Amino acid sequence: MNILIYGAAGFIGTNLALTLAQDENNYLTLVVRDKAKLLIPELLNFKNVSIKETAFELDTNFDDLFKKQDVIYHLISTTVPTTSNHHIPKELVANVIVTAKMLDACVRCNVGKVVFISSGGTVYGKEVNCPLKEDYPTNPISSYGIQKISIEKLLYLYKYMYGLDYRVIRLANPYGPYQRPNGILGAVTTFTYKALRNEKIIVYGDGSVIRDFIYIDDAVRAIQTIVDGETKHRTFNLGCGYGTSIKDVLGSISKALDIDLKVQHLPGRKVDVPVNYLDISRYEREYGKLNPISLEEGIKKTAEFMINQQMI
Amino acid sequence: MNILIYGAAGFIGTNLALTLAQDENNYLTLVVRDKAKLLIPELLNFKNVSIKETAFELDTNFDDLFKKQDVIYHLISTTVPTTSNHHIPKELVANVIVTAKMLDACVRCNVGKVVFISSGGTVYGKEVNCPLKEDYPTNPISSYGIQKISIEKLLYLYKYMYGLDYRVIRLANPYGPYQRPNGILGAVTTFTYKALRNEKIIVYGDGSVIRDFIYIDDAVRAIQTIVDGETKHRTFNLGCGYGTSIKDVLGSISKALDIDLKVQHLPGRKVDVPVNYLDISRYEREYGKLNPISLEEGIKKTAEFMINQQMI
Repeated sequence: MNILIYGAAGFIGTNLALTLAQDENNYLTLVVRDKAKLLIPELLNFKNVSIKETAFELDTNFDDLFKKQDVIYHLISTTVPTTSNHHIPKELVANVIVTAKMLDACVRCNVGKVVFISSGGTVYGKEVNCPLKEDYPTNPISSYGIQKISIEKLLYLYKYMYGLDYRVIRLANPYGPYQRPNGILGAVTTFTYKALRNEKIIVYGDGSVIRDFIYIDDAVRAIQTIVDGETKHRTFNLGCGYGTSIKDVLGSISKALDIDLKVQHLPGRKVDVPVNYLDISRYEREYGKLNPISLEEGIKKTAEFMINQQMI
Repeated sequence: MNILIYGAAGFIGTNLALTLAQDENNYLTLVVRDKAKLLIPELLNFKNVSIKETAFELDTNFDDLFKKQDVIYHLISTTVPTTSNHHIPKELVANVIVTAKMLDACVRCNVGKVVFISSGGTVYGKEVNCPLKEDYPTNPISSYGIQKISIEKLLYLYKYMYGLDYRVIRLANPYGPYQRPNGILGAVTTFTYKALRNEKIIVYGDGSVIRDFIYIDDAVRAIQTIVDGETKHRTFNLGCGYGTSIKDVLGSISKALDIDLKVQHLPGRKVDVPVNYLDISRYEREYGKLNPISLEEGIKKTAEFMINQQMI
């Protein structure tokens, strides 16, 4: 199968690429803005992997990339929730409008399927109760969430108009190997990294914020299942299916690594939904139990990776 | 109150302006692309009405227009459902992105309230049953519907982030005086016009398509109620609340005007949802019965207007 990953230098893209490259029946095209930013340069050694250096912009020539692709993974986001409200019109153009142009190209090139990683953490907003189901109302409190929802609705429209198949994965908070521990995204990874380096951990708010954390290997496995599956549904929540507070994340890290943490609390941020975890019963009904590993186990694996990679 | 109507040369804008201008406590700014296109030139005779010729574009300077405005009506759409899928990225920019820039200006200028006329006919799509409630899922099958939904979500976000108040009115199919009988929008108005002129009426499909028609005076009255009201809701469906097939519209026109119609059927259009009518119980719970006039009565009034205006 010909598979293209747009945004292959990111956390999810890297893990997906690593998994997909190991199947010799796949021919992988990894699209990155800058080859030097690939997190696993060894990916270039795979015979079935090629790299294209291309940006994701209004004047990108998608047609040259998309010919004969069976599956295209759209993993691009030019923004993150916390900063997406600073320049809303600009961020909408960079994500929604460019995606619409990308979908036009998919139609022209007869692409088989588009896989879009949406955001279980931001599309639902604050007005609905957890666990969140896929058919709940969506009222994002960040432009990031609006971008994701708009793209989801474009996918629905392009399927309706042109038969372009797609999957939407509303992913919760993935963590683990190859996630950048820079503190912008990924509390588990960042806190684990700081703990191992005996550095100060910064928490926004009192630690009561609740999120749905999923270890990246579990996420990648489930994404493959969703992409390959054919059911009446095209949109799936994907998380571990239960909530964990930031306070409990800190406790789990301390216990898993047997380290006393240095924690500093800063004021909470308006863009953070207080409680967010997903109902994953649609996935489990269609594809069986997800059986994600426990947070403590995931933290241990993440720490082990960091030590092996000499990040610490 | 200082009220600005963006898109005052359209059908809804014209009727709104006419009503609002008659209250001497209002000071009205009508924004139109071209003064010559005002449907009621006499609006210029009102002492409390001023006109601004300004487009709705990426480089529009909204700040100059919006200072000291209490209420801004956003009635602009650069597209209609049937053609909105031809150039999706372009239409999204012209509507969603320009609106985001407009909302940025509203925040800078401390505008009191933004009123957005959304589309009860396109935001819900085909997957839900009528009558449609405001909290039903939205899966538009036109880029027009996606534009409306994206703008609704931006309004929600700007309220959350900046306290900018708003009302969203998901309007069904309004008809009546000042609607252009050009056959692109407004079956009732166009068919009435054609009937009076003894011209051929073109129907897409077999006439079984069902819509929710509301006479423009009833719509304008309810819009005012929603704009002035303060309830926990900011989004309201607005229609007559029941469905009428195109076939029955033709029957009502024939009966109301006592004319035999010449009807030609063309193939149905993919962009038309087969059945669409709105549940208006949220409005009626908050503000009392809407009591819209009957379709036959509305057709008579519309015909009378056309005859008085020597359109026939």
